[in-house]
Amino acid sequence: MEVDVVARATTLSDAAVSGDRLALSRLLTTVENRTPIAEAALRRLYPSAGRAHLVGITGPPGSGKSTLVAALIAEVRAAGRPVAVIAVDPSSPITGGALLGDRVRMQAYAGDDDVFIRSMASRGHAGGLASTSTAAASVLDAAGFDLILIETVGTGQSEVEVAATADTTVVLEAPEMGDEVQAIKAGLLEVADLVVVNKGDKPGAQRTAAQLRAMLVASAPRDPADTRPRPKRPEVLITTAATGAGVPELLLALDRHRAAAADGGEVEARLVRAETQVWAIVADRFRARLHDPAHAASTAAVLEEVARHRLDPFAAADRLLSEIEAD
Amino acid sequence: MEVDVVARATTLSDAAVSGDRLALSRLLTTVENRTPIAEAALRRLYPSAGRAHLVGITGPPGSGKSTLVAALIAEVRAAGRPVAVIAVDPSSPITGGALLGDRVRMQAYAGDDDVFIRSMASRGHAGGLASTSTAAASVLDAAGFDLILIETVGTGQSEVEVAATADTTVVLEAPEMGDEVQAIKAGLLEVADLVVVNKGDKPGAQRTAAQLRAMLVASAPRDPADTRPRPKRPEVLITTAATGAGVPELLLALDRHRAAAADGGEVEARLVRAETQVWAIVADRFRARLHDPAHAASTAAVLEEVARHRLDPFAAADRLLSEIEAD
Repeated sequence: MEVDVVARATTLSDAAVSGDRLALSRLLTTVENRTPIAEAALRRLYPSAGRAHLVGITGPPGSGKSTLVAALIAEVRAAGRPVAVIAVDPSSPITGGALLGDRVRMQAYAGDDDVFIRSMASRGHAGGLASTSTAAASVLDAAGFDLILIETVGTGQSEVEVAATADTTVVLEAPEMGDEVQAIKAGLLEVADLVVVNKGDKPGAQRTAAQLRAMLVASAPRDPADTRPRPKRPEVLITTAATGAGVPELLLALDRHRAAAADGGEVEARLVRAETQVWAIVADRFRARLHDPAHAASTAAVLEEVARHRLDPFAAADRLLSEIEAD
Repeated sequence: MEVDVVARATTLSDAAVSGDRLALSRLLTTVENRTPIAEAALRRLYPSAGRAHLVGITGPPGSGKSTLVAALIAEVRAAGRPVAVIAVDPSSPITGGALLGDRVRMQAYAGDDDVFIRSMASRGHAGGLASTSTAAASVLDAAGFDLILIETVGTGQSEVEVAATADTTVVLEAPEMGDEVQAIKAGLLEVADLVVVNKGDKPGAQRTAAQLRAMLVASAPRDPADTRPRPKRPEVLITTAATGAGVPELLLALDRHRAAAADGGEVEARLVRAETQVWAIVADRFRARLHDPAHAASTAAVLEEVARHRLDPFAAADRLLSEIEAD
């Protein structure tokens, strides 16, 4: 790695860790873009990360995630604790959209260095969304944020995976949603450590909570790929994020889950995050080699043959693997 | 590869290609589970695939994707053409949910061998959702389906990527949707070849279409990772899927796009699909080696060190790569 890159990464990460929020923000941009500076900075910061509680918050559109996150921030700040938010945004960073909501939320804490809110586009992450958000969480963790909320729209595979790599995964529901949303809900429950019925002041909230409790007693199936032990079935809470009702109880439940998981599930979540990051880097390294000047032409030729259906993708993969090994 | 596996794959794929729908269905299950039979069958079928028109159909929840797909099937069948649908379902295969809708749709074509509808869970695909759906499309293509519709809920990264690997990507919109959905729409437009305002009988449909046309003239930004050339800006159509209004025009637009893209964008889409599949297989092969008896213990130890923050993920990746190379 170039000396210059390491020097700049050192300056940036030392500034970020010592409380420079602009440096922290810049560092997160390099992480999102997977630049060489990000690699050098992550290597430097990684040993001092690993202490924060990562909380994934996901749910279907319209369940009130952003409002709940805002209410949680207020509750955490009232207790004098710092908090960071990574909001995974399905719209692009260019077209804006939901980013507006963040700017409004940011303004409320403009003078408060113990609140840090960061939007991250959900598309265009070569190494995978879960790997990028995990790396971003490590940076925030090293910068002293003890509680990191990762907010995602829970309708996509990658977005649900992001929430599921957290130490504690909160799934939001709202009473009376459409059919398609009902289907999404069923899938989401499988990753939940805590289920929150938000909009608790709406008619049907109590009934929705009761239905969820009954459903969860019937032992919900889970994603076979999720190897984390789930010691007990998820607790169901009711909140009204808009008024703050139920939010103190949610924060207590999060802290309780953290304590209970510390010598169980949390270790598993850490292993899943480690794997996610390592595999993404292995894939990056491997692709970089196949696209370096020595291999680029033959890689392109092999992929072209596959595109033309003259070579099957398995034969192509084996050819590329043996090329690298022949180096 | 074991002789037995090859023999079973040969039997299954030959039956699927000769019109046995049960065999086709079983073959798609092996593809979804990435079994050795799937590999052998895909290698056998791949040379006879590559002719079908792959159409991705995506949009936010509530935009009426399933109804539009049903209307398109009716239109395509009226023209005597065969059609297959891959419906990527955000709920798990176990909890059901949206699968119900498929069963209803399937019943309408129970006696019609030229309609094939298949649901695919969106979670738990080790090699990535785009890679699995592309492989499934190759099987349907080899089985003679000339038009393959791939329907996804357009709110997640992986789901949008699936639609974007198609030759033609249709993005659905509906008039008067909520704020969060508006943000999702902006992100989706970047991958659109055709934009369809569905629920055209609702007030505001014409205005929504006009706004979209104006927006697209202002040259929408696009995902930097999307390297396909986009020769012209997407056409905006209005449909009312529930009554079938506008659906014949949509099918004509799809056929036009196919013809126009045949020597341009379609080639690029084929390259993207080739890459998606080859990288997923390379990653599979690589992981399999790191988990084989010779390496499993040291792989687990390295990942554990990363989980405990005693080793950074970049150093871990390099250690695993050099282990494989030392073989």
